[in-house]
Amino acid sequence: MMFTSESDLMRTIDWNEESNSVVLVDQTLLPQEYKVIECKTLSSLCEAIKSLRIRGAPALGAAGGFGIALAASLSGAKDLESMTRDLKVAAKALKSTRSTAVNLGWGVDRVLNAISDAFDVQGARDIALQEARDIAEEDIATNKLIGKYGTKFLKDGDSVLTHCNAGRLACVDWGTALGVVRSAIEEGKEIKVIACETRPLNQGSRITTWELMQDKIPVTLIADSMAGWAMHQGLVDSVLVGADRITQDVVFNKIGTYTHSILAKEHEIPFYVAAPISTFDFKGWEGSVKIEMRDPDELRFSGCQQLAPKDVEVYNPAFDATPMENVTAIITDKGVFYPPFLLDEVLV
Amino acid sequence: MMFTSESDLMRTIDWNEESNSVVLVDQTLLPQEYKVIECKTLSSLCEAIKSLRIRGAPALGAAGGFGIALAASLSGAKDLESMTRDLKVAAKALKSTRSTAVNLGWGVDRVLNAISDAFDVQGARDIALQEARDIAEEDIATNKLIGKYGTKFLKDGDSVLTHCNAGRLACVDWGTALGVVRSAIEEGKEIKVIACETRPLNQGSRITTWELMQDKIPVTLIADSMAGWAMHQGLVDSVLVGADRITQDVVFNKIGTYTHSILAKEHEIPFYVAAPISTFDFKGWEGSVKIEMRDPDELRFSGCQQLAPKDVEVYNPAFDATPMENVTAIITDKGVFYPPFLLDEVLV
Repeated sequence: MMFTSESDLMRTIDWNEESNSVVLVDQTLLPQEYKVIECKTLSSLCEAIKSLRIRGAPALGAAGGFGIALAASLSGAKDLESMTRDLKVAAKALKSTRSTAVNLGWGVDRVLNAISDAFDVQGARDIALQEARDIAEEDIATNKLIGKYGTKFLKDGDSVLTHCNAGRLACVDWGTALGVVRSAIEEGKEIKVIACETRPLNQGSRITTWELMQDKIPVTLIADSMAGWAMHQGLVDSVLVGADRITQDVVFNKIGTYTHSILAKEHEIPFYVAAPISTFDFKGWEGSVKIEMRDPDELRFSGCQQLAPKDVEVYNPAFDATPMENVTAIITDKGVFYPPFLLDEVLV
Repeated sequence: MMFTSESDLMRTIDWNEESNSVVLVDQTLLPQEYKVIECKTLSSLCEAIKSLRIRGAPALGAAGGFGIALAASLSGAKDLESMTRDLKVAAKALKSTRSTAVNLGWGVDRVLNAISDAFDVQGARDIALQEARDIAEEDIATNKLIGKYGTKFLKDGDSVLTHCNAGRLACVDWGTALGVVRSAIEEGKEIKVIACETRPLNQGSRITTWELMQDKIPVTLIADSMAGWAMHQGLVDSVLVGADRITQDVVFNKIGTYTHSILAKEHEIPFYVAAPISTFDFKGWEGSVKIEMRDPDELRFSGCQQLAPKDVEVYNPAFDATPMENVTAIITDKGVFYPPFLLDEVLV
């Protein structure tokens, strides 16, 4: 099992040489328990993705890649043609676990494409595993670049407010928004994080606080509704969030991000988005994306705890869209972009 | 047991003639169970107040009054002097249950003062009960007046966003902010309510949604962080909240209110506060009030559900302060005030 240099913890997802399996941190057990699970079969990996044991766009890209590598390793095919058939079945199973997760499908397809260069089944297995490992390595390298470009925005002593989890547990390692925090700390700056709990699924309280505490990065948990008051009290120097999709006009991210952007504008606090360039949807606009409505029970219950009448009507959008005019800068692995801009112009 | 004309439900707190006891709705069991508990002893009433089985400033005023009436009814004193001694002990016990609840002490003192007119112990008992009942009746009358003055701000078909619970369960009946909604509906308007869940204690999901559903008033539950996006989507016509204390410069109310006021300003949505004139602190300013920090475990746990690392640092202010410039109007039982104003000038 591989451990990263940055912390004693395993990467969010990795390949285990000895057991020929995909190993991953079970995030549904956090913060109560840190447990690494081994997926030796494709169905156990599919179950892990479906149950959100692993989540976060970059981490799911690696999960898709390792999933195909696992299927190749398990396939008893004697020729390339049969193996390709096996892997297409595996690809379909993987993609159907979370059909809206773009990165998952991207990771699956990238490894599938790579093995078209193989001469025999063992070659295909080797290529699949190497390609999946490349995805994981590239994700870490991407996040380190985001961190490198982003540190100039964080001053020594700053308190950074973040929402949801754009950290190492959403990626293979290091993180996007929290990667910028880690890079700034690596440069010797003292940075504190204010983590919004991020209702209704509490990724902020469950995952962000946990991963920062593992790295001994100072973190304070607040309810989402406290963000405005914390800014008014002078407790926040900047807002730093991840992104699910960035179009020409808006940043799609976890519900609540838009509210923070308005609050930041009102209090004249910079609002930064940190995301890999692969998050950019160059042809998309706000109107071209339909925001998924999630299960009403997420607001009626908190695990075993009932919070509201069982039949109360609920409005539960998964994401919101922050207009570019509320965004101070977008920090990517290709550099920093300052809205307003036309993506096709800055990226030619 | 008395039932109100407005609904089949009992008042939040009342006196039971047959058993000589204080009866109240146990709000800690909502929304799972609607249960009326009988407090036949002062200690059971004190426990109910301490455990938040009854909460909300106006309801606590009545609880204080009925508490002294209960103590008078239970006292075996043979003369007025001994009874006064008994009631002073009872007053101290009642006030110590929630030492920062101004209305609780006010209700206790009002009934104590009233019995100074008594000629004998039975007279004292009668006066105490009558005075406590007057407090309860006056609270309902006050809320009906707030409702009467407030309805002009709600148009037929409006969606009103509210925070926490400024409803009948925070009062003896009818409610302040939700009382305005009830009065508008009584006038024949169709009004929908968007209830923010109000983290960390979820008074919005537990109590506001429940009491509105009992009255068949349409209500949609959202997470607090969704308020901005709901406004951006055009789902909110006005914001209407209660108040814990109103000073010359700010409105103190449940944490999260300030954030909603910024969002309302940004989206050009009116922001109304509904509260009895007794909420006004004519000599106070924002700086003269210290905002209580509540138990960090409120953000680490949700009932039986652990949400965050047990030792994570937490920022958990009970209230925030909304500047008058963010407030469109304050609706009281003495009429409507439009900030900015100097309270002593408008109320002479």
